Amino acid sequence: MDPNASPSLFDMQASETADAQAAKKAPEAETKRRATAQEMAEKQREISVSEFFTKNRHLLGFDSPLKGLLTAVKEAVDNSLDACEEAGILPEIAVEITETGADRFRIAVEDNGPGIVAEQVGKVFGKLLYGSKFHKLSQTRGQQGIGISAAVMYGQLTTGKPARIVSKTGKKSQAHEFFLTVDTARNRPDVHGEKVIEWDKDHGTRVEIEMEAKYQKGLRSVDMYLKQTAIANPHLTLHYQDPTFGKEGGSERVTYARSTKALPPETVEIKPHPHGVELGVLIAMLKETSCRSLSGFLQEEFSRVGPKVAEEICDTAKVSSKAYPTRIAREEASALHDAIQKTKISSPPTNCISPIGEELVLSGLKKEIEADFYVASTRPAAVYRGNPFLIEVGIAYGKPGGVGLELSEEGRITKKKTVIATEDLVGNADEPIRVLRLANRVPLLYQQSACAVTKSVIATNWKAYGLQQPKGALPIGPCAVMVHIASVWVPFTSESKEAIANYPEIQKEIRLGLQDCGRKLAAYIRKGKRLQAEFQKRSYIEKYIPHIGIALQEILDLSDKERDSTTGTLEDVLNKSRKF
Amino acid sequence: MDPNASPSLFDMQASETADAQAAKKAPEAETKRRATAQEMAEKQREISVSEFFTKNRHLLGFDSPLKGLLTAVKEAVDNSLDACEEAGILPEIAVEITETGADRFRIAVEDNGPGIVAEQVGKVFGKLLYGSKFHKLSQTRGQQGIGISAAVMYGQLTTGKPARIVSKTGKKSQAHEFFLTVDTARNRPDVHGEKVIEWDKDHGTRVEIEMEAKYQKGLRSVDMYLKQTAIANPHLTLHYQDPTFGKEGGSERVTYARSTKALPPETVEIKPHPHGVELGVLIAMLKETSCRSLSGFLQEEFSRVGPKVAEEICDTAKVSSKAYPTRIAREEASALHDAIQKTKISSPPTNCISPIGEELVLSGLKKEIEADFYVASTRPAAVYRGNPFLIEVGIAYGKPGGVGLELSEEGRITKKKTVIATEDLVGNADEPIRVLRLANRVPLLYQQSACAVTKSVIATNWKAYGLQQPKGALPIGPCAVMVHIASVWVPFTSESKEAIANYPEIQKEIRLGLQDCGRKLAAYIRKGKRLQAEFQKRSYIEKYIPHIGIALQEILDLSDKERDSTTGTLEDVLNKSRKF
Repeated sequence: MDPNASPSLFDMQASETADAQAAKKAPEAETKRRATAQEMAEKQREISVSEFFTKNRHLLGFDSPLKGLLTAVKEAVDNSLDACEEAGILPEIAVEITETGADRFRIAVEDNGPGIVAEQVGKVFGKLLYGSKFHKLSQTRGQQGIGISAAVMYGQLTTGKPARIVSKTGKKSQAHEFFLTVDTARNRPDVHGEKVIEWDKDHGTRVEIEMEAKYQKGLRSVDMYLKQTAIANPHLTLHYQDPTFGKEGGSERVTYARSTKALPPETVEIKPHPHGVELGVLIAMLKETSCRSLSGFLQEEFSRVGPKVAEEICDTAKVSSKAYPTRIAREEASALHDAIQKTKISSPPTNCISPIGEELVLSGLKKEIEADFYVASTRPAAVYRGNPFLIEVGIAYGKPGGVGLELSEEGRITKKKTVIATEDLVGNADEPIRVLRLANRVPLLYQQSACAVTKSVIATNWKAYGLQQPKGALPIGPCAVMVHIASVWVPFTSESKEAIANYPEIQKEIRLGLQDCGRKLAAYIRKGKRLQAEFQKRSYIEKYIPHIGIALQEILDLSDKERDSTTGTLEDVLNKSRKF
Repeated sequence: MDPNASPSLFDMQASETADAQAAKKAPEAETKRRATAQEMAEKQREISVSEFFTKNRHLLGFDSPLKGLLTAVKEAVDNSLDACEEAGILPEIAVEITETGADRFRIAVEDNGPGIVAEQVGKVFGKLLYGSKFHKLSQTRGQQGIGISAAVMYGQLTTGKPARIVSKTGKKSQAHEFFLTVDTARNRPDVHGEKVIEWDKDHGTRVEIEMEAKYQKGLRSVDMYLKQTAIANPHLTLHYQDPTFGKEGGSERVTYARSTKALPPETVEIKPHPHGVELGVLIAMLKETSCRSLSGFLQEEFSRVGPKVAEEICDTAKVSSKAYPTRIAREEASALHDAIQKTKISSPPTNCISPIGEELVLSGLKKEIEADFYVASTRPAAVYRGNPFLIEVGIAYGKPGGVGLELSEEGRITKKKTVIATEDLVGNADEPIRVLRLANRVPLLYQQSACAVTKSVIATNWKAYGLQQPKGALPIGPCAVMVHIASVWVPFTSESKEAIANYPEIQKEIRLGLQDCGRKLAAYIRKGKRLQAEFQKRSYIEKYIPHIGIALQEILDLSDKERDSTTGTLEDVLNKSRKF
């Protein structure tokens, strides 16, 4: 950064003046001043984050009426689930979508959560970048403190109407009702009306947002999101009423009942792991810390750093472990940062990750997807950029409308008609398999092709597991593959949280999980094929056994009884003889 | 929004208590309180936009050292160009990248722009979401007021070092030097040192940022970005010094000299078009306006609204045109919004768009891409969501290393060896064509497949224009297609401004532009093929003409002179006879 750097300056001066002269000559040249630095300075001003996201609302998943509806429901339900779990309440959530006009819908999401204290309601629903989850490292569905306020903003943008929030924090406390909008120019809530109302509910929160929207069933619908949410949250009881409810030929209210009463273990907050911290962050932490010694700072602010490791780091960095953190200069900090990378530190605690668990993944799949065969696998926790994460994979395989074969105890093969797997979750035998992506128990429905999950599924060699697979594409078959990533910080590719970024560590874990389930699937498919073949052979033989019986009867002139017992024996022999 | 809505409540109560009882029985049930609403409220707090983007910096294009380097240079150069054009100065910019250590580089971008007044420097470089371009509708490269501050932030995050900024606003004023970082927790600049220095330059700004980075040549390199910037900004003189400069076998400083001295016309700021405004925005505008009558408001705040149209809107909405804007109720605003949509309003002014122009696109392509054939087309301006935009397409077609044929004046066909087109811009005959994407004269290098431009190129039927094209893929051939979108608001798919969103209006214009150029390309390619065939035929005939000559000489016993003139005549006949 020496001021007399860059020879370029001089060249530029030269060529510039040359230009200037040329410019004078050149008739078309227009170098007349348009605006001065001062004039330009006057136009400079701050942009509120709400203005920014209103103009760029597609970044938050509000780019179309169809997607807007899903995103709004998603944000509300995610918050409800987070709140219930944080409070230790078995969540019961009701989602209602009501048509209020042409391309107008009102979504209402109501939970039995802890409720929100009146003073906070405004900011929680009416201020972007506000919340409790951003600053702590723990496994929550929400991360950024944008979602629900963005939904309120989208509602007011498209209908001009405020959102209605009702909240009650306990039996003894009163229910408060709010009508609020976001003051986008200042990114703060505008509360239009707050009053105490009667609410025959112990505690909980209800959000109502009216918005321009489009309702549609299908792979990326609210229905699909809720169905998958039920799979990933077996402790949740969910009531859903879609806009067609109460209409001619409309659908009934659906209830996904919980299959377990055990809440997921409480999400533990962890401290950052030294290996994941960047120099700039380290410097900021040194400035902010209340610790009085470097050694203390390292042990206090990071996970997996004890006195020994702290000493080691300081030694390698040639900085006194007694040094006052706030007095550490940039060079020393830089040395510390290098030292940290060089020091061997055990990987971060993984008890902060709460997976769904193989058993519950299986029961979830079985409850919501009809298929012939299910398998699930939960990987051990791993780490990317200092963040612990964990991958779970589940596979449901069925032959919709096809015919399956079973092997009975006594080795008899019996045909069995398999149920049509629910159209939307397991596809037909000639379609690509369905991929269900989940992050911290939240289904991801958009940007499938950009997601690390899809890339890993495609990268896996499914032919080895008995499925066809076109080059560089999803395998073909009546099959649904579910991949769940649980992490204290899920690396999404956009604020709308639709796809997972492509970290090699993450891709590796997904691959291993897929292979694990794939092998079990392969065994099942192979067996199915063997049975199929076997079934053919036998049906032939069985066809002829009676004739053989009759032949024997004539040759050895047996009585009909003897003949029948012989054929009987023959069939037994046949069934027992062939092994699987 | 009637409070006594939703029967669901009651069902929930029921089933909830049912659950509660079950829970009591169930041993594994854990519904014990974990945190109360009050405890949770205490953890709620604001998140600064800088914290947000530090943690999510991949959203801004800083997800890898390789991309980080490009993004930083891009942001700095874009700002320099915008500033020069706004000030009416022919831009001359110097870019230097210097290696300062392992994976450490310092980028320096220096312009001859108007400079920045000292009081503003801090905020411009040290505060996210601050600038002059976000709030106005005009064609600028920058839009969001994030880019350059994000680059500074990335530098300090990875190296802990502050950015150095030198700025001078005029001959008579002094040059100021700043060292600054971003206070991410508060999203405001930390100025570590400001002093007046000597700078032998009339006016301009120099930015130096040191960062963890990776330098590489190739399709997505800084080199490529600068090359394309030169093509799209023929009025720019650009000096570039890459990190290998001065090293053993390193490259020289490159200078892209300007090919025109005419600045692009000044970008005009326009008012929003009524048809593009959303109800929520309309309500906000009504609240903020200083106009005293609705009619005045409509004419004042929107483009293309005169007294007649204003009246018409008010009548349709059944609202008095004399009404006081700030007193308009939501229902009336809603009626106004509907009325606006119903009213026929001429499409927005398009003089605010400044295209590069066919001529300059051609000269740009010719200057930087060596090929055999060039064509360009500028579409008339169109509108999406009330925003004017304009599409320009240019094609460079060459046969690298191949052999071309030319038709001489007198109709002789002559072989000509075509130059190898520069490796990176026109591919080989058996590779997919190269797509150069530009938005407001800024090259886009990442997320090609997600971009409306690429999608449109793929959707075009190139077989009709003489290129092979695999299904659903880019056509094959030694060809570069450049597409430029100019708009007062380019709809990017992410803050990193790498891909253009898929608006049907935009795709349509791109398609028309491509087809226009495609037809001309087709003519050229067909002609090439005809010449090829023709060349074969002729070479045969020409081979035999001498023999014919000798034969005639024997038959008609001509003198050698007569024979030669005869063969001469024959050849002329041959050349003239066949028409093209």
